Amino acid sequence: MSSTAGQVIRCRAAVAWEAGKPLVLEEVEVAPPQAMEVRLKILFTSLCHTDVYFWEAKGQTPLFPRIFGHEAGGIVESVGEGVTDLKPGDHVLPVFTGECKECRHCKSEESNMCDLLRINTDRGVMLNDGKSRFSIRGQPIYHFVGTSTFSEYTVAHVGSVAKINPAAPLDKVCVLSCGISTGLGATLNVAKPKKGSTVAIFGLGAVGLAAAEGARIAGASRIIGVDLNSKRFDEAKKFGITEFVNPKDHEKPVQEVIAEMTGGGVDRSVECTGNINAMISAFECVHDGWGVAVLVGVPNKDDAFKTHPVNLLNERTLKGTFFGNYKPRSDLPSVVEKYMNKELELEKFITHSVPFSEINKAFEYMLQGDGLRCIIRMDA
Amino acid sequence: MSSTAGQVIRCRAAVAWEAGKPLVLEEVEVAPPQAMEVRLKILFTSLCHTDVYFWEAKGQTPLFPRIFGHEAGGIVESVGEGVTDLKPGDHVLPVFTGECKECRHCKSEESNMCDLLRINTDRGVMLNDGKSRFSIRGQPIYHFVGTSTFSEYTVAHVGSVAKINPAAPLDKVCVLSCGISTGLGATLNVAKPKKGSTVAIFGLGAVGLAAAEGARIAGASRIIGVDLNSKRFDEAKKFGITEFVNPKDHEKPVQEVIAEMTGGGVDRSVECTGNINAMISAFECVHDGWGVAVLVGVPNKDDAFKTHPVNLLNERTLKGTFFGNYKPRSDLPSVVEKYMNKELELEKFITHSVPFSEINKAFEYMLQGDGLRCIIRMDA
Repeated sequence: MSSTAGQVIRCRAAVAWEAGKPLVLEEVEVAPPQAMEVRLKILFTSLCHTDVYFWEAKGQTPLFPRIFGHEAGGIVESVGEGVTDLKPGDHVLPVFTGECKECRHCKSEESNMCDLLRINTDRGVMLNDGKSRFSIRGQPIYHFVGTSTFSEYTVAHVGSVAKINPAAPLDKVCVLSCGISTGLGATLNVAKPKKGSTVAIFGLGAVGLAAAEGARIAGASRIIGVDLNSKRFDEAKKFGITEFVNPKDHEKPVQEVIAEMTGGGVDRSVECTGNINAMISAFECVHDGWGVAVLVGVPNKDDAFKTHPVNLLNERTLKGTFFGNYKPRSDLPSVVEKYMNKELELEKFITHSVPFSEINKAFEYMLQGDGLRCIIRMDA
Repeated sequence: MSSTAGQVIRCRAAVAWEAGKPLVLEEVEVAPPQAMEVRLKILFTSLCHTDVYFWEAKGQTPLFPRIFGHEAGGIVESVGEGVTDLKPGDHVLPVFTGECKECRHCKSEESNMCDLLRINTDRGVMLNDGKSRFSIRGQPIYHFVGTSTFSEYTVAHVGSVAKINPAAPLDKVCVLSCGISTGLGATLNVAKPKKGSTVAIFGLGAVGLAAAEGARIAGASRIIGVDLNSKRFDEAKKFGITEFVNPKDHEKPVQEVIAEMTGGGVDRSVECTGNINAMISAFECVHDGWGVAVLVGVPNKDDAFKTHPVNLLNERTLKGTFFGNYKPRSDLPSVVEKYMNKELELEKFITHSVPFSEINKAFEYMLQGDGLRCIIRMDA
């Protein structure tokens, strides 16, 4: 056991005191892990849109002060009572949604929507005692989606932590905690394009490009990228995108443009914007008889998906996915192996890197739409 | 070759001279089959809603005089030039949608929506020369969906004719030409419930009960029937329906009723009414994480399917099917074998039988919602 096991750890964390205000690096106290919890030393974390979305707190119940962060790589520092799957020193990825391995969802081959540990953005405390493990001079600081990786040390439920190959570089594979796996899995696990097939990807941000990377790995012959920002097209080529469509360049709906390009529609489409019209286009652009459309992007809560049922009766399939249908503990280790054996390329997703002390720069990059992933180095 | 090969055959046909008016038994002339066509002696035909729908001709372009009929069993009388797959004497089921075996759809493992022979309700003539093979004193009589089985003899494209086991009783297996296969295949080929799973069936007419029969064959543990007509519930028990829900008996939406009955939703649902609200309920009543809803019923052309996208993002799947995803020539013989080996029960679908001379009675039964299938005996 490490010398810190069982002790409160004092370390740096980037605290969001108020919605939309720059994070403040503070010394926080991190309590030891309780039953079925583990305490992790975070080495690298990256910024994802979801952090920014809840930090801006537009349209949700604000929960502050809070420590955000959910894409990360770290090492187990100590474990709580009852934890047998992890031990100090294990290399891990904390994940925003967990896998208890005991509920109906975890026991189903098809689902990754664990009843116990499914993402909960409203809960800022640990399940075990309904309290936070973070505090500053006695004031509790809320957790975020069970991970709170913008801290040198954090506490997570064991079910929200995937043990990975210790040889994997954490400064690269940390991006597999959320967005990249979401896009990759949407294609590989849900859309499942066959070798030689045609795929359309809606939205060329990190998730969409990861979906394109999945199509490239699956051997798609044509990968059509759709985005309103033509500047994204050049970079997208690195991810296997072979053709580009900017809906703004066309009078007719983009689904008709794609149908014309492909003799009736693509074999598969993956929607990564969350825009309701893009969702409808992504569905209607797949070929009748066999086309499958997969929805990834999260819509506004008042949006309605609307299509003529004949589009379905003509043997199209519409599916949604959550975290690319990966079960975090069971499946993430194999995604890391895809990187290790060079099947999956991660370097091209990492466009920026900042020391922890400059974490607010990562927010600026994202707000400006500059780059894909910014790695935050915790030791600097 | 039969003695009639190459000759015009004079025989009885039930002609629809006008929309909605009783059929008239007439002596028609049936021309010999041309290239890639076959002429069939129809022994048994049954009446399906689609015949009635186009006979009523509400909302479509009327095409009269016409010979309806598309569920039938018969024997090949003669074959046209180039036909090698069928020979006189073969026992067959004509099908309203064909399989050319050469187009992209026929070559796809997933689709049965043949480019050449896909159902076309507006075309009343043969593909080869754009003309009818039926006439009365020189006046052409239109075909219906390439089958026109309300005639003692008919001509069909070879791609619209499935060759079956000659030992199969045609007065039973004729119902596999359309509705029963549509419902059965929706469950077995598309919804694919696992043994022990829960299934909801919306609409307990012949197609819905065939979908229930599919769930029974698949070993579903609970089969929940949904219908606005509670009188259908008793009969439905014969088809494996274990529980009944009449949406009229509940204040809350039927999808909520089913979710409560099943701890969150059924594993699979099959929608066989074509009512847009039933379609939405059928989708929203499946369990998150793994639920699959299959749409079979044909909606009005102005209907819009509408749901909140989160219902999809929570890992539900929505699919439509056409003719139960069966490829008519490749797959129907094996459905006939399911009947022959007693896996599939067809007798319970056959509630009436009339001689050809009383074919209008079959229309009356259907318009009154009386029974499931009425067999029309052509030799009487």
